[in-house]
Amino acid sequence: MPTPSPAPELAVSAWLNTAEPLTLAGLRGRVVLLHAFQLLCPGCVAQSIPQVQRIERVFASTDLQIIGLHTVFEHHDAMSPVTLRAFLHEYRIVSPVGVDMADEQSPIPVTMRRYGFRGTPSSVLISRDGAILHETFGVEDDLVVGARIAMALASAGTSQ
Amino acid sequence: MPTPSPAPELAVSAWLNTAEPLTLAGLRGRVVLLHAFQLLCPGCVAQSIPQVQRIERVFASTDLQIIGLHTVFEHHDAMSPVTLRAFLHEYRIVSPVGVDMADEQSPIPVTMRRYGFRGTPSSVLISRDGAILHETFGVEDDLVVGARIAMALASAGTSQ
Amino acid sequence: MPTPSPAPELAVSAWLNTAEPLTLAGLRGRVVLLHAFQLLCPGCVAQSIPQVQRIERVFASTDLQIIGLHTVFEHHDAMSPVTLRAFLHEYRIVSPVGVDMADEQSPIPVTMRRYGFRGTPSSVLISRDGAILHETFGVEDDLVVGARIAMALASAGTSQ
Amino acid sequence: MPTPSPAPELAVSAWLNTAEPLTLAGLRGRVVLLHAFQLLCPGCVAQSIPQVQRIERVFASTDLQIIGLHTVFEHHDAMSPVTLRAFLHEYRIVSPVGVDMADEQSPIPVTMRRYGFRGTPSSVLISRDGAILHETFGVEDDLVVGARIAMALASAGTSQ
Repeated sequence: MPTPSPAPELAVSAWLNTAEPLTLAGLRGRVVLLHAFQLLCPGCVAQSIPQVQRIERVFASTDLQIIGLHTVFEHHDAMSPVTLRAFLHEYRIVSPVGVDMADEQSPIPVTMRRYGFRGTPSSVLISRDGAILHETFGVEDDLVVGARIAMALASAGTSQ
Repeated sequence: MPTPSPAPELAVSAWLNTAEPLTLAGLRGRVVLLHAFQLLCPGCVAQSIPQVQRIERVFASTDLQIIGLHTVFEHHDAMSPVTLRAFLHEYRIVSPVGVDMADEQSPIPVTMRRYGFRGTPSSVLISRDGAILHETFGVEDDLVVGARIAMALASAGTSQ
Repeated sequence: MPTPSPAPELAVSAWLNTAEPLTLAGLRGRVVLLHAFQLLCPGCVAQSIPQVQRIERVFASTDLQIIGLHTVFEHHDAMSPVTLRAFLHEYRIVSPVGVDMADEQSPIPVTMRRYGFRGTPSSVLISRDGAILHETFGVEDDLVVGARIAMALASAGTSQ
Repeated sequence: MPTPSPAPELAVSAWLNTAEPLTLAGLRGRVVLLHAFQLLCPGCVAQSIPQVQRIERVFASTDLQIIGLHTVFEHHDAMSPVTLRAFLHEYRIVSPVGVDMADEQSPIPVTMRRYGFRGTPSSVLISRDGAILHETFGVEDDLVVGARIAMALASAGTSQ
């Protein structure tokens, strides 16, 4: 098993569904599921967002922290924060969502580049001590995802 | 059977996926399926748009004319034509779509008000002679929809 | 358009869900949907039987006659009439079902051979005057099926 | 947390898909998923059997032992071992299946009575040391099931 990589910090220009900005540093000690999506991405709307909402229900009694990340890398004018806010309302998404910080030199926003996401949807499971346990591009079977999150929650942290 | 009502003319501020603006008057002689949607309407994205795309495939060899109508009546800033254009691209919607004309006095756009739609998705089936054959709010069973369109196509027109 | 073939008569060794045996001759004047299935056929259980049950609901107010035909051509010992009766009960199938008559010379039962079905599920739509309008091996889109049944019901009969 | 109950031993009159009879005693040290079904149970065919097949795929590289149990408590004549064998073939079920032993005094077979199953589908997850970790009547969400199996596999056994 390779040594787990530390999860890069988030770079977020605006937060929705949370009074306080979130940082991975501040969430150390909890398992974090980071879900990168775009509101005009059909696979996100049809598959990964419903899966994340099922995860929210199933793991509601645990200390799992779910974070949505709106990683706009195409159609930038079409997916403004105004549209994102209405989207979250219509799709009843209530967990915190950060807008991935735009990069002036590139269509790829900053956090997306740090993680090297190939597109949306992408998901990252982060251990209690801030290490990347798993990265997924696309959507995996619920059985696999449920198993992986349970194991992460049961663990005291990869470095301990 | 009540006398069918004439279908009110469309009021459209911009067209996508068509070089020429469409009018119901100009489509007299053809059966028209008018599909009113909003790009942030979950029931449209998950159900009515896929159904309309199935209808496109199944009735491709007939003279059925499908027209999408973007009837924005909420979150107006969030669903601009720029966002609509990217949405049509991402969801591979290729039949003509009109932007329902905004009404300065009301959040309800003009065509939506003329037809009295209760929300989105709404669909109207219009006969060869321009009469409303059926209006639906929500989504009906494919068997029912297929039967109704076939009967409309088979008919020479309600007034003849 | 080819001249429609007359639908061969049914050869049935036992009827369920009907007090009187049915014959196509006796149903002349009505549209008939003949649905050939086997109770251990996964595609029948998952797809064609639910579709037939949707057709029952949607066309309940018409004079469409739906007939199930249990065409056992494999695992004969496993799909006896006793098992069929329990199957119909558990799956709440209430329209008439005939057991296709076994052929002593062949694993293929008599009606199946007359129609030349390639397997199950197969469906045949029969016009008011007893002609085959359409045969399907497998399951078609509900839109197509709904359109075809509606046209058959609207017609006075192919030979008239 | 209550003390886990020991899982009652299986009473099986015939095995399919295995050269050797299985016993829970002989499987001590492995996690066992026991899936009670009937071949004419619609919820089993549509939901629990596909879920068990997904579990087989996802946990194929682990030492999880999946056992099907054909617990016939109704329509006994309709669900003989001959029909079961053809059913397993048609549905491509390859993991071991035991026929729950008939009880001469009752329609409820012996293993079903020992476990107190309320009907089919029922599932029992058994720990490495032979204790019942969880019983389900019906079908639970894949996320929940995946999480529970992963935790059972990760555990050295409840009594240790």
